[in-house]
Amino acid sequence: MKGLEDLSKIYEKVYVLRLGHRPERDKRITTHVALVSRAFGANGFVLEGICDDKVRDSLLKASKSWGGKIDYICNVDGKEYVKKWREEGGEVINLTMYGINVEDVIDKIIISPKKKLIIVGAEKVERFYYDNSDYNVAIGWQPHSEVAALAIFLDRLFKGRELFYNYRDAPYKIIPSERGKKVERK
Amino acid sequence: MKGLEDLSKIYEKVYVLRLGHRPERDKRITTHVALVSRAFGANGFVLEGICDDKVRDSLLKASKSWGGKIDYICNVDGKEYVKKWREEGGEVINLTMYGINVEDVIDKIIISPKKKLIIVGAEKVERFYYDNSDYNVAIGWQPHSEVAALAIFLDRLFKGRELFYNYRDAPYKIIPSERGKKVERK
Repeated sequence: MKGLEDLSKIYEKVYVLRLGHRPERDKRITTHVALVSRAFGANGFVLEGICDDKVRDSLLKASKSWGGKIDYICNVDGKEYVKKWREEGGEVINLTMYGINVEDVIDKIIISPKKKLIIVGAEKVERFYYDNSDYNVAIGWQPHSEVAALAIFLDRLFKGRELFYNYRDAPYKIIPSERGKKVERK
Repeated sequence: MKGLEDLSKIYEKVYVLRLGHRPERDKRITTHVALVSRAFGANGFVLEGICDDKVRDSLLKASKSWGGKIDYICNVDGKEYVKKWREEGGEVINLTMYGINVEDVIDKIIISPKKKLIIVGAEKVERFYYDNSDYNVAIGWQPHSEVAALAIFLDRLFKGRELFYNYRDAPYKIIPSERGKKVERK
């Protein structure tokens, strides 16, 4: 039986690189970005310039109940990480409202077997990332949220399948319910 | 030419009700929920129990550059708001990871011409909202983010069309670009 962990394996790695995290201001936003990475089938979450135990702990807590082992890497040099990713044959996708509409590039990205690094910025993203990405991709041309942008991008990459899978090692499983909450211990 | 504002008009109103906002803790998350509401075609954003000028100002700022007039309503009694919505013939959709998968109910919701109130909670959502919603809808069965859940729900409701439209009264328009940022003054 297929699981959520199989989605990213199509490309070996689907990692999310979070830029510009400031623990006080962005604590919850970055946690949401990390949880979306895990829940929508990415298998790595990378924090640029800093480590933040609260973000790591949120990922661990989610995995403890609902399974999955997402790689957590922190305090990397973002530019070096991007360069290295491309040198290793991977491709880099920068999510920005100024980019090409996701629907106009997603087929090319899906077909390419390369490992994928998805860049999710905070306020300002340096020019470097625009210039050194294989794709600058817009999730619509409105200002909204890096959390939403990442969710829609992964949803398109995995063609909606991510909404149906669970992690195979999950100790708990939700029984979908019209009212209330039903959880089964596996 | 169609615009983003036309999507919600199919149902007269597509409003988002944000529960349990705490200004210090949730400031940025609730702002992201509000911006996603606007960017993904909802025409109203309702804050339960409180007003928060920072959230309102973010919506105003987005509309000033990128158009659109989303209703902002605040400090409502959530339960009364839900009751009234249903008395007026509207339907209520509660987003929760314990619900029925969005793909299994979205066709029914799309076809129904009723105005739609989408509930987006913070940490704990009271039982009342599960019992008094027409649909309890799961955006996958993993813990992630109300920002992502709302984006995916609206994306399914509007069948991805929201990613292509602009607001017709927008003073600025993005010219999609492979590198960098191109903005046109209309």
